[in-house]
Amino acid sequence: MKIAILGYGTVGRGVDEIVGKHTADVEVARILELPDRLADERMTSDFRDIVEDPEIALVVECMGGLEPAHTYIIEALAAGKSVVTSNKAVVAEYFEEFASQARCSGASLLIEASVGGGIPWIASIEKVRRIDEVSSFSGIMNGTTNYIVDAMAKNDADFDEVLAAAQALGYAERDSSADIDGIDVKNKTIISACVAFDVSCTKEFPVSGIRTLTNGDLDVLRGMGRGVKLLGRGVRSDGRYAVSVEPVAVPLSSLEANVPSNFNLISLEGSTIGPLKFYGQGAGMLPTGNAMVQDIIDFANGRRPTYDFSARLAYAPELLTSDYLFRTTASLPGGEGVASGYTILRSLTSEKARELLDDALEKDPTSFMAALPQED
Amino acid sequence: MKIAILGYGTVGRGVDEIVGKHTADVEVARILELPDRLADERMTSDFRDIVEDPEIALVVECMGGLEPAHTYIIEALAAGKSVVTSNKAVVAEYFEEFASQARCSGASLLIEASVGGGIPWIASIEKVRRIDEVSSFSGIMNGTTNYIVDAMAKNDADFDEVLAAAQALGYAERDSSADIDGIDVKNKTIISACVAFDVSCTKEFPVSGIRTLTNGDLDVLRGMGRGVKLLGRGVRSDGRYAVSVEPVAVPLSSLEANVPSNFNLISLEGSTIGPLKFYGQGAGMLPTGNAMVQDIIDFANGRRPTYDFSARLAYAPELLTSDYLFRTTASLPGGEGVASGYTILRSLTSEKARELLDDALEKDPTSFMAALPQED
Repeated sequence: MKIAILGYGTVGRGVDEIVGKHTADVEVARILELPDRLADERMTSDFRDIVEDPEIALVVECMGGLEPAHTYIIEALAAGKSVVTSNKAVVAEYFEEFASQARCSGASLLIEASVGGGIPWIASIEKVRRIDEVSSFSGIMNGTTNYIVDAMAKNDADFDEVLAAAQALGYAERDSSADIDGIDVKNKTIISACVAFDVSCTKEFPVSGIRTLTNGDLDVLRGMGRGVKLLGRGVRSDGRYAVSVEPVAVPLSSLEANVPSNFNLISLEGSTIGPLKFYGQGAGMLPTGNAMVQDIIDFANGRRPTYDFSARLAYAPELLTSDYLFRTTASLPGGEGVASGYTILRSLTSEKARELLDDALEKDPTSFMAALPQED
Repeated sequence: MKIAILGYGTVGRGVDEIVGKHTADVEVARILELPDRLADERMTSDFRDIVEDPEIALVVECMGGLEPAHTYIIEALAAGKSVVTSNKAVVAEYFEEFASQARCSGASLLIEASVGGGIPWIASIEKVRRIDEVSSFSGIMNGTTNYIVDAMAKNDADFDEVLAAAQALGYAERDSSADIDGIDVKNKTIISACVAFDVSCTKEFPVSGIRTLTNGDLDVLRGMGRGVKLLGRGVRSDGRYAVSVEPVAVPLSSLEANVPSNFNLISLEGSTIGPLKFYGQGAGMLPTGNAMVQDIIDFANGRRPTYDFSARLAYAPELLTSDYLFRTTASLPGGEGVASGYTILRSLTSEKARELLDDALEKDPTSFMAALPQED
């Protein structure tokens, strides 16, 4: 089978390397690159050379960003070429359009690498759903923020110091806001909710990051027997669903609290299987490339995933309700002081907590908040 | 597709319930039960009614034990019926014979539920191996022993007390020796090694359990920043392999140390994917039933797993070498005292450690030993 790779950055090179070394029946025939980087005879800067080549059955999109990735994916699908992508931003934004175009033209859309990097997360949800309903999912889906929180806790280091180290190691982008403000996890949460719940997930749900997290916050939480992790979460119940992205104070003895460095851990709860958790590298050239090549092999073996957005679930924020810990010098409506500057507010929805945080940030831009779910 | 279930205990009932409620195209047409328990018109006590029924495509073996499970599996395969089994003992003992009979008669053997209960472990190894070599695996593969160690550590309770509680909860058999002496994990390790390494795994490798574990041992290990877990492990390197089952002192901050209750956590290391870890229910009616029904659906969808035992790997115990902590009143060859009654011996193979433990147990039947692998 001949395939083309769009974009020859870290992930594109990973796919090329793995296909070259580890698969017998797949050939990377064309690579789309910028005109000044055509280093190899397979490379072209003209997408027409790929989309109009009848021999190419599948296109691997590794460009990132919304455009031109969105246009290229739609054009490839419309030309009957299946698409494998790791681009969470473009899938979260255009998932229904892609799925509908794929259905029309008999092509497939494969998105394993868009959530959890090398972790077989999307395929696992699909497999679980052959038997079970998925009632919830939850996960550490962003390696950069996990690296930052883990290094802050282990080395008693400041946020800024650790972020700079993460950037030097290549674990964080120079513009890190998509990671530390939760946008990357938001995209992965939207995709996971679509696949797990068959829902056309709202894009208007509460998203908070870890930008204002301090060592003092980690100390206070540790005193409460908790660590903190940036989690994307989704819950489904009785024709309703809720999703959120926020720092969650997890018990120190939970698997989540003990996920080191830039690893990911994503969980689901199924009706007969119970809880399943999957741990691995959430990013990186070879793990993400591996997930994309798994999709390519699945496609070659006849797997044709389809996506359904027809579950008319009502978005019901009250499904994600817990206590919240706030640190702010702004005034909060009630609550119990637990340490100097720290207040616990009981039984807030994630949405309400985010509203209170917005108000607090206006007066105190260093304000921080974390959900305090009940321990199991 | 019509299937038959052999044995209507916990797991057999789980399979029947899940097939009845959650799958559209599969019908449980016959169930093999003891003559005095034929409660349902599908039930028969005569295996001929199943193996000679041309409409039955697949047999689900939920009997456990070596015989008659072994005979029934071979006869079903010889009759061209595919077999799904959760029976680790019979697969570990007769894996090559089953695989060879399946190959001859064009039937399939599916063994997902034989290791890790509801965790998609066998299918995950097979998927990883489409691209990667697996260089090692390691896991908490027995829920009973994890429950015991976890409860001893959390409740400061004695081994015997916790074992009795586990038996009352149905987490441990009345005859618990297969669990606490590591035999169950040995079988799962043999199966994992076959699937991960294509090796006809030796049955002569070191196996130790947790029968002599005390609260004092847990305290001493905690002082060293470690917990203890009964792990099945396998390593492959340069045409050689090693396997072992023994208590391993894992860092308190590892995922392994934080696996609660009767859950399992199994890991592998692949050449491009890096480490992957899978967590879930390692036993139980619905999780194990779920894994078997996943195999049934896979088979219905055309999955035909094959097993290869042709990797002529040399069994090389030196691949599993680490320091060991011993507690014994018997004398040991050298070593460093670390606490009253406790000695660390450096750089032993798992085999050598097991030999030393055997010697020690002759003089002090309460002796205990745990591997102390280097922290990553």
